[in-house]
Order: sequence, then structure tokens, then C-alpha cells
Amino acid sequence: MLLLIPGPVTTRPEVRAAMAQDLAPWDADFRPLYAGVRERVRDIAGAPRESHTTIVLQGCGHFGTEAAVRSFVPPGGRILVPVTGPYAERMVRLAREAGRVPVPMPISAVAPVRPADVAAALAADPTVSHVGLVYSETGSGVIHDAAAVGAVVRAAGRRMLLDAVSAFGAQPLDMAAMPELDATIFTSNKCLEGMPGLAFCVVRIDRLEACAGQAGSWSFDLADIHGQYKRSGPGSFRFTPPAQVLASFRVALDLYDAEGGQPARLARYRENARVVHAGMRGMGLQPYLSAAVQGPVVVNVHAPDDPAWKLQGFVDALKARGYLISNFFNTPVPSFRVGCIGAITPDDMRGFVAAADAALGELGVRHRKPRPDAG
Amino acid sequence: MLLLIPGPVTTRPEVRAAMAQDLAPWDADFRPLYAGVRERVRDIAGAPRESHTTIVLQGCGHFGTEAAVRSFVPPGGRILVPVTGPYAERMVRLAREAGRVPVPMPISAVAPVRPADVAAALAADPTVSHVGLVYSETGSGVIHDAAAVGAVVRAAGRRMLLDAVSAFGAQPLDMAAMPELDATIFTSNKCLEGMPGLAFCVVRIDRLEACAGQAGSWSFDLADIHGQYKRSGPGSFRFTPPAQVLASFRVALDLYDAEGGQPARLARYRENARVVHAGMRGMGLQPYLSAAVQGPVVVNVHAPDDPAWKLQGFVDALKARGYLISNFFNTPVPSFRVGCIGAITPDDMRGFVAAADAALGELGVRHRKPRPDAG
Repeated sequence: MLLLIPGPVTTRPEVRAAMAQDLAPWDADFRPLYAGVRERVRDIAGAPRESHTTIVLQGCGHFGTEAAVRSFVPPGGRILVPVTGPYAERMVRLAREAGRVPVPMPISAVAPVRPADVAAALAADPTVSHVGLVYSETGSGVIHDAAAVGAVVRAAGRRMLLDAVSAFGAQPLDMAAMPELDATIFTSNKCLEGMPGLAFCVVRIDRLEACAGQAGSWSFDLADIHGQYKRSGPGSFRFTPPAQVLASFRVALDLYDAEGGQPARLARYRENARVVHAGMRGMGLQPYLSAAVQGPVVVNVHAPDDPAWKLQGFVDALKARGYLISNFFNTPVPSFRVGCIGAITPDDMRGFVAAADAALGELGVRHRKPRPDAG
Repeated sequence: MLLLIPGPVTTRPEVRAAMAQDLAPWDADFRPLYAGVRERVRDIAGAPRESHTTIVLQGCGHFGTEAAVRSFVPPGGRILVPVTGPYAERMVRLAREAGRVPVPMPISAVAPVRPADVAAALAADPTVSHVGLVYSETGSGVIHDAAAVGAVVRAAGRRMLLDAVSAFGAQPLDMAAMPELDATIFTSNKCLEGMPGLAFCVVRIDRLEACAGQAGSWSFDLADIHGQYKRSGPGSFRFTPPAQVLASFRVALDLYDAEGGQPARLARYRENARVVHAGMRGMGLQPYLSAAVQGPVVVNVHAPDDPAWKLQGFVDALKARGYLISNFFNTPVPSFRVGCIGAITPDDMRGFVAAADAALGELGVRHRKPRPDAG
């Protein structure tokens, strides 16, 4: 069964196998593994050792986002969030419930955020200290230009938090060239093709230390975790971690390097997404995005306007053929979504396209275009 | 290698094997697994389906404790915490940094909390709404009497939160008979012998709903997770979970039932601890606790007062013999600690005792009694 959900992703057998062991997280033999993973993902972020560090948090990407907001935006502080889709809306909610003041900035749901619009919003509101950007919005499939947005944030003298959960490892990132970027947040189980259970924040050390003491949550205090590393060593956890996830993540990073790192992974995912996007169009379905803005992470496809269409029925028919897609959608209009990340290849995607065509036939879906008002 | 750390624990091979699979957490095939685990741990808590529910949180036990404090104690609310040891101190810190007012209550480090003392403290301070109790304090090895403390909390008309992280599944619990208990917090990787990565809170539904809206953290809002179950079904996660941990936890629960549940598990752990406690005394070492108050979860042992003693050296010598203990201690005086929980037997503990004797010999530790001032 291939997971195209998109994330947790399909993993390689070596990654899964590393999950099946008992591990003692504070043992002297485990600490170098942990410390090494922290260094490797900092390198992938393009972040120098002297200025940046990796903070690891148990849980999921949302926990990492809340922790970053709490640790860098002061209570009552204002963070501008371009509303790229549901994941930006989640950042807004995480910030608001943590006692920060999110400033949602409406943008198109089907196009990248325009840096000039961010610049104008910042110019109009000098009380905003941070911009929170979703690098890859899985709700649409659009990749936003983190470097270009970062440039206008930098020019405006503000700070940035980057939710790179479904982008990190595939999309390029050069934190050394983005001094405005306080933190980049990501997880083990997306483009780095590990297992779920851990969130990571690569952060600027000077900024983290300058902001210490304002998180309002011991669990989510990234500065306190940084203090733990300084007190007890770079491979030390405060609280019990999912050590198996970390051990399997190291294997995933080995496979990442062996594949050729970020450029190779992005190229494979792009081809995966191209095959799906073209394949969907080829069978008469309409992708949610134009090919020009379609990102490599997830292809959302409009639901066919046919009474025989049922998302769960389509999911079940695909599952019987070995492909698992999400049984929900995140677009404003009915759709289904196909994850293009994970240990899957363009050939797998060609197999998926054929299976999707057969599944629609099995359901009796004849009219494959969306409702005329679906956009 | 046997982990005696105590927790994450040694698991059975079937539990580890279930970690090595790709899983889609929102898939229709996975949801019943998740919903079933929630029901099973609620049953182990002695909590009726009509009145109680299980809330699952990604991460670790401390996250569960912070989430329970936030979800049940209002901002600025006061929670009395008998300071049983480091885990109670952590509850104090979690509460304080979350904007609640912990009221630490000093008690003996080497004896169970006296319910009459809790009653007196509550009578003296009517502004305290909650008592936060650590059921099994691994910092000492003492089991505290949750039911007896609960009775005085109930009599005083107050509420209770129970950190049962290292107790749940081995120590008895009857939440149906403890209406004062808002939440019991535990994890997958202690006495239930699963893998780390998940925290659980079994809670009173009426209380959770009455307290909704006060968490001050979307991630840690147990009432919001409850709302997710009601909206999207009892097997639905808000955010990506470590699905492999959950799948392996189901296997662990099967093994728990097959062993005979709580009474059988407690009996095995008690015998494990008895073997260690007696064995340490038999070789001239002094356990931190008297046999009368020694709990079944962890045996802390005073460090020998000999210049040849080095904790890391002892750990290494034991590791070479197949036993892994913690390379730190949580008692006020130097010690080492031996976990007695997990998929380990009294025979394993006899093997450990022999290995410990040999390891001390290898280190050249001759004087095995503690420093005279160590208590």
C-alpha cells in the first residue's frame, strides 16, 4: 500500500525497520544519534552552526508552530499571517489561543503570496513584529516564495517564522541568507521521509536567547530546551522522546543524502506531481491549480460533478488497488488530494493515475469536470 | 539488552514489530484501532463510558500534565501539589509557567503523603481548587495513596488531577469511585509496556465540558480534542499522531490482558522490585527506601561511599552485561536507580543483581554503604 495522503508519507523499509527496537533516550549510546540528527537538519536548513541551532520537540508540527510563536512573539505581540489556506488559518488559531495577536492577511487561495502585498501590509502596520508564512500550503498545493517574502520582511525590519512542515528537505532553504528568519518549523514525516512523532525548529540562537522567558508554557519553551542542551549536552532531552522515531529518522537522513539531498528530492517530487497533474487532466478531471502554480507536494483535484461521485467510495476503490489517498479535503470546494511526497516514484504515480481512472469507472463516474461554480 | 531505566521500558517483540509499518492516521481502517485503544485505557482506569472519556495527546507525559492543568484549572487558579519529589516539582513548574498558581506542599521524600495533611492544607486555604498528586514518584520510588488522598479532596469539595504516568496499569485505579478526579494522566511507555510518543488523559466529560475555553493553548486544549471526537468521530485526530506508537500500543494492551491485567502486572512488578531491593541489601548496598514503603516501579539505591564509585562506570559495566540503567539520579543524595517495570521478570532481576555485584567488583568498589550523612 502506497500512502499518498500526503504525510505521514510512505517510507523506505530501512526506515520502518529502525522503529522496531527498544531504546534508552538518555543513554550515552543514544545521545550522539540525537545530537547528530540535530546537526544534519540544521545543515539542510542552510543554517550555520555558529548562529543557529536545532530544537527538537515531541509531538507534531502544530506543536512546533505553537512553540515557535510562543518563544519568539511576546504575549500580546502581533504576527501577520498571509492566509494561504487551512495551515495558515491554523497558525492564526495557535497564535490567538496562545495570547498573541494574529493579523490575518487575505490572499488568493490559488496563487503564491505576493511579496509586495506583505511589504504594504507591514508598512501600514508598524505594530506587527513578525510575519508567519506557510512555505508549502497543502490546503491548496501552492508553494510560497519564502525567500522573497523574507526579503521584504527584512527590508521592513521585522522578523519571520516559517512553517516549512510539508516543504522542508524538498524546497530550497538558506537560513544563512535570511537573517530575518527566527525559526523554521518542520517534522520528521514529510519530505525527509521519516516517521511521525517529532517536530523540529531550526532557530537563530541570538534571537532565541533574547526572547527567553516569554513562552508562557514550559513544554513549548524553545529557549528552555536550548538551555537543556547547554546544561546537559547536545543530545539531551528534557522529557521522554519517541526515541524510535528519532532512530528511524537518522536512517531517513542517510537515504536523503544518498539520493542527492534537496535538489534530487525536489526533482523527484516535481516529476511525481507533474505525472499526477497531467494524468488527472488527461482523464478529464480538473486539478485545483494551474500547472504554472502547482507545487510538488500535493495535487488537489476538483471533485467530479457526477451523482456517482463519493469521496470515500473513490478512496476505497483506490485502496483496493494499492493506493491510499486522504478521505477528506482542505480546499473551499469539494476535491480530493494526492500526496506526491514520500518514498514514491514517477512510476508509482503513473500506476496511481491508471488506478484512479479505473476507480472512477468502477464508481460509474462519467462526468469528470467539476461543478461550473467550483472555479 | 534489558532497559531498567525505568521507562521507556523493555517491550515484547510483538510490540516492537508493530512499529515497523506505514500507517495513515485518518484512514477508515485506522480509526477503529484508535477508538478502541481509547476505550480500553478508559476501562483500565475504572471509568464508565457514560461519564468519562480518553483524550489522546501527541508527545510525552509532561505534555499531558500541562494540558490537564490548563484544561481544568482556570488561569490564575490555585493547585495544591504535595511535593513528593521531582515529578511533583515538574507539575509545579508546568502549572506556574502556564499562568496557574501552584501551591507546593512539602512532605517527606521517603514516605507516602498523609491524607490528613492534605485535608489540613485544604481546610487552611479555601482558594485552592485542585490537588495535583503524583501517584508513583519515580524520584523516590514511593507509591502515594491516590484513593485516600482523593477521599479527603472529595470531602473538602475540591477537585484532583492525578499524574499516574509511572503507575497506570499496575497500580489500582477506580475512577468511578473517585468523582473528585477530573483527570488521570499517563503514557504508553510505562506499566502498559508500549512505546513512547503518546500521552493519555482519562477525564470526566461533564467537568471537561464545564471547563472548556480556558486552556490558553490550542495544542493543549483537552476540551477541544474532545470536541474533535464529537465532530469527527472517536477515532479522529486533530493533528498528525505517531500512528506507529498507537498501533504498537494496541498490541501491548493485548499482552496486558493476556497476562491478567492490573493485578497480574502489579504482582510481577512487585516481585521484580522485591528481588532488587533484597538483592541490593544482600550485597551490602543500601536502598533509598525501607522495604515497607518501597514501591514496585523503581528501586533507588544509595551510591556506595567508596572513591572507586562512578555512576557512569557502573552503568557501562552493567551494560556490558546486558542491563541498562539510568546514568543520572533524581534523589537529593547520590544514588542509582533500577526500573522494575516493562517486559521483564523476577528472573531477569536476579540476573541484574548478580551483574550489579560483578560490576561493583570490576570497578573496585569495596565499601558499599552510603556516606553517613546520606540518610
